[in-house]
Amino acid sequence: MHKNSSQSGEYELGSTLHLRRLGIDTHEEAVIYMRRDCHVCRSEGFSSHVRVEVNVGDEAIIATINLVEGDLLAPHEASLSEVAWRRLKAREGGVVSVRHPRPLDSLSRMRAKVYGQRLLDGDMTQIMHDVVAGRYSDIHLSSFITACAARGLDRTETIGLTKAMVVAGERLEWGADVIVDKHCVGGLPGNRTTPIVVAIIAACGLTMPKTSSRAITSPAGTADTMEVLAPVNLDIVSMRRVVDKEGGCIVWGGSVSLSPADDTLIRVERALDVDSEGQLVASVLSKKLAAGSSTLVIDMPVGSTAKVRSNSEANRLATSLLSVSQAVGLNTRVLRTDGSQPVGRGIGPALEALDVLAVFNDTKEAPGDLRERALDLAGILLEMASAAPNGAGREYARRTLDSGAAWKKFQAICEAQGGMRHPNAAAQRLPILADSPGRVVSVDNRRLAMAAKLAGAPESKPAGVEFQTRIGAEVAKGDVLFTLHAESRGEIAYAKEYVKSHSPIIEVE
Amino acid sequence: MHKNSSQSGEYELGSTLHLRRLGIDTHEEAVIYMRRDCHVCRSEGFSSHVRVEVNVGDEAIIATINLVEGDLLAPHEASLSEVAWRRLKAREGGVVSVRHPRPLDSLSRMRAKVYGQRLLDGDMTQIMHDVVAGRYSDIHLSSFITACAARGLDRTETIGLTKAMVVAGERLEWGADVIVDKHCVGGLPGNRTTPIVVAIIAACGLTMPKTSSRAITSPAGTADTMEVLAPVNLDIVSMRRVVDKEGGCIVWGGSVSLSPADDTLIRVERALDVDSEGQLVASVLSKKLAAGSSTLVIDMPVGSTAKVRSNSEANRLATSLLSVSQAVGLNTRVLRTDGSQPVGRGIGPALEALDVLAVFNDTKEAPGDLRERALDLAGILLEMASAAPNGAGREYARRTLDSGAAWKKFQAICEAQGGMRHPNAAAQRLPILADSPGRVVSVDNRRLAMAAKLAGAPESKPAGVEFQTRIGAEVAKGDVLFTLHAESRGEIAYAKEYVKSHSPIIEVE
Repeated sequence: MHKNSSQSGEYELGSTLHLRRLGIDTHEEAVIYMRRDCHVCRSEGFSSHVRVEVNVGDEAIIATINLVEGDLLAPHEASLSEVAWRRLKAREGGVVSVRHPRPLDSLSRMRAKVYGQRLLDGDMTQIMHDVVAGRYSDIHLSSFITACAARGLDRTETIGLTKAMVVAGERLEWGADVIVDKHCVGGLPGNRTTPIVVAIIAACGLTMPKTSSRAITSPAGTADTMEVLAPVNLDIVSMRRVVDKEGGCIVWGGSVSLSPADDTLIRVERALDVDSEGQLVASVLSKKLAAGSSTLVIDMPVGSTAKVRSNSEANRLATSLLSVSQAVGLNTRVLRTDGSQPVGRGIGPALEALDVLAVFNDTKEAPGDLRERALDLAGILLEMASAAPNGAGREYARRTLDSGAAWKKFQAICEAQGGMRHPNAAAQRLPILADSPGRVVSVDNRRLAMAAKLAGAPESKPAGVEFQTRIGAEVAKGDVLFTLHAESRGEIAYAKEYVKSHSPIIEVE
Repeated sequence: MHKNSSQSGEYELGSTLHLRRLGIDTHEEAVIYMRRDCHVCRSEGFSSHVRVEVNVGDEAIIATINLVEGDLLAPHEASLSEVAWRRLKAREGGVVSVRHPRPLDSLSRMRAKVYGQRLLDGDMTQIMHDVVAGRYSDIHLSSFITACAARGLDRTETIGLTKAMVVAGERLEWGADVIVDKHCVGGLPGNRTTPIVVAIIAACGLTMPKTSSRAITSPAGTADTMEVLAPVNLDIVSMRRVVDKEGGCIVWGGSVSLSPADDTLIRVERALDVDSEGQLVASVLSKKLAAGSSTLVIDMPVGSTAKVRSNSEANRLATSLLSVSQAVGLNTRVLRTDGSQPVGRGIGPALEALDVLAVFNDTKEAPGDLRERALDLAGILLEMASAAPNGAGREYARRTLDSGAAWKKFQAICEAQGGMRHPNAAAQRLPILADSPGRVVSVDNRRLAMAAKLAGAPESKPAGVEFQTRIGAEVAKGDVLFTLHAESRGEIAYAKEYVKSHSPIIEVE
């Protein structure tokens, strides 16, 4: 229930203030700053942390009130957090009006899930619609995610959530019937097959308009790595131009903003470190549907320090991905891969880009595991898209890579995205040596990734870790296991301290 | 995992900034404002919404980062939200240091609950400890509350949560063995029995150090009503002085800050409107234990627009309250009462206070239902505390009220709390009349409460609703059903508009 003042012209004027930009970045949380003693707070009875509807021109959002005491704002002024400022298309000095929001019907459906009811397709649609409109506070988002994890989502609910996420955003369409895509169920540093796979697929005449993410908790996302080699912040119009010309692209998904509902949920899932299978499946598949894909291969690394830790977990997740894919009309295959150690040598944007270039050019430094994995994935896609007979896809992919056709295509894609660039080397390097001789028996992927982050990746492109051994290798005392790369001595020191206090990251027996 | 820089003296200096107060009130959320381009954010890699450990002198809290662009802060400056400023005992220009926080072990226990594990006593203790220390963000708090509601708390977990909430705060001790308390499972406007019950009990020589809440979503809490008659913002020392002298008090619980864990959880439960039985039981009983009570009567109004809506709900809740009470050593009885309509005539602080005074003085306006309910509750307590034989408690309470002893005691308590005061009348009044003749068949308590709030209660003490009929009464067209009281014409207009658009609040057939 709420005050209906805004419906009455008489009080309408009383609820406006003028905007002043304070420049406060609250990440995704819409906040309105108002003086405690302003006439709007007094007349509407607003207190701190209350959720209100904020209108600027024709734009409306729900925001959380932060009250201000003292002279930060004049009595007739209000301010907005940066995300609210952008969403409302606000301008300095503009008029803002504030009112009690209408109750959100979808919250009662969310509560019903908390208490054990199933969510129907219509419920999911309404919830995702309100999420995308910014009507859910972090408290509501967290409750939704927790309720779905605690109560679980059955197959029908997962399908409903997947479709609702797609409907709540834009959906791309392409000229071709077969649109190829790949996804990796994260957690493995250096696993940068995407640029190679896209180049091979596009060189074979198929369409692969790939959107990738930036790192959030990892030392590099595919978009970060690709950005070392070409611009990736393309809008949909530019992306389409690249794909029309070259059949493929590798751009940052954040620029084209597919599945905004998913972006919002993922942010809160990360803060909670709660991750339910139903939500993971809906997240992956909704992004692919929104991107207009028809044909998808999923790389699923399995290993004790990867995201999927066991075969039974892999079985369950693969079954759910395939079953929901079928229901939403995606042709999907899952490839389980070795998740016991990083792929390639580089961990960090520039170091990974160097691996990619080495594979294209077949230099002696080219990491064999990265090459083989890219060929496996590309081979499966070529078969799924009927570009090669069953059993012949991998060989077609290999020929396309070894002939130089993929490298030529990759360069053309980079040029179309705005011009090819070359990786820079880091100023500071520190090799980490084996304490004792023996055989490498295990690698802690998570700690290796953390060391790369402390060295500055992904903000610092050249920073990261060069992984210079493999499980099973025999090493002598003093052999280099990996090398820290950073731009400053301070960052090298951070990373070194972490490595020292979290040894052994690479276990030698 | 986190950067360990702060453990090394070498980088310690690098992470400090100087404080400037901006005066931003984020309610209970600790926020630190830092410039995006300050050396701390750059060197530590902090981004917006990241949780950090903030230290000022010996005080430490966990806060959420809001990054600032532009000149709101100088490069060497940081600011804190008002709650963080208070908790850290910060001062203008003082030094603040910021670091990555240690991981919270209790979050992994919370996640285990999400995934269906039971929470042991030790888990509950650790979680409540971290909640009180401000280490949980709203996202974490919401997840905990939702997980407990979705998975449910069994009896052992509810007992564990109750005890953990007590341990996480202070616990009062009093000279006597028997400490009497009462609680009402809210939702019924005007049900202001507490001042009458406390006065009767104290007049009978028992000890009843009552802490009450202020309104959060209702038009008046007991503390708001009592504040019309005497100061209620007493600290523990002052409260003890009143109780030592008079045997009873009615003070605001917020001043003495019993069960801070509960205060934090309740704030998020309200935002979610999620309310699980286990948490409700733990919330009520932990507050009583923390207040040092031994003997408790619970008023449980049952009615379709009250908090407890049905007899089956009442049965379940009463069973749980009694069972957990026994386990934690509280002597508890539950009295089910009529929750179909408001108690007394007044809804709003001053109007309710007038009802209380009328009952004490037995004037002709004294509402019989308020008097009877207070006598019922006091009678039960007198028997539980062995001040009266079974069956004779109510009569003892009646004699104490009718003899004027309770009134004398009440005045003495008011004087001891800082001096008795008298209610003011509202400047604006608007009677709401029956549209047609007939019999009153139902009252929507929730809407009546909302009308009182829109009229200005509880911030405006004289504002509210005077409820002037009863279910079963025969009314003629034009008879007054209730009267709106407000200090300004604008507030009367707000309330009137709401009443018009939500009719009938009182149903006449």
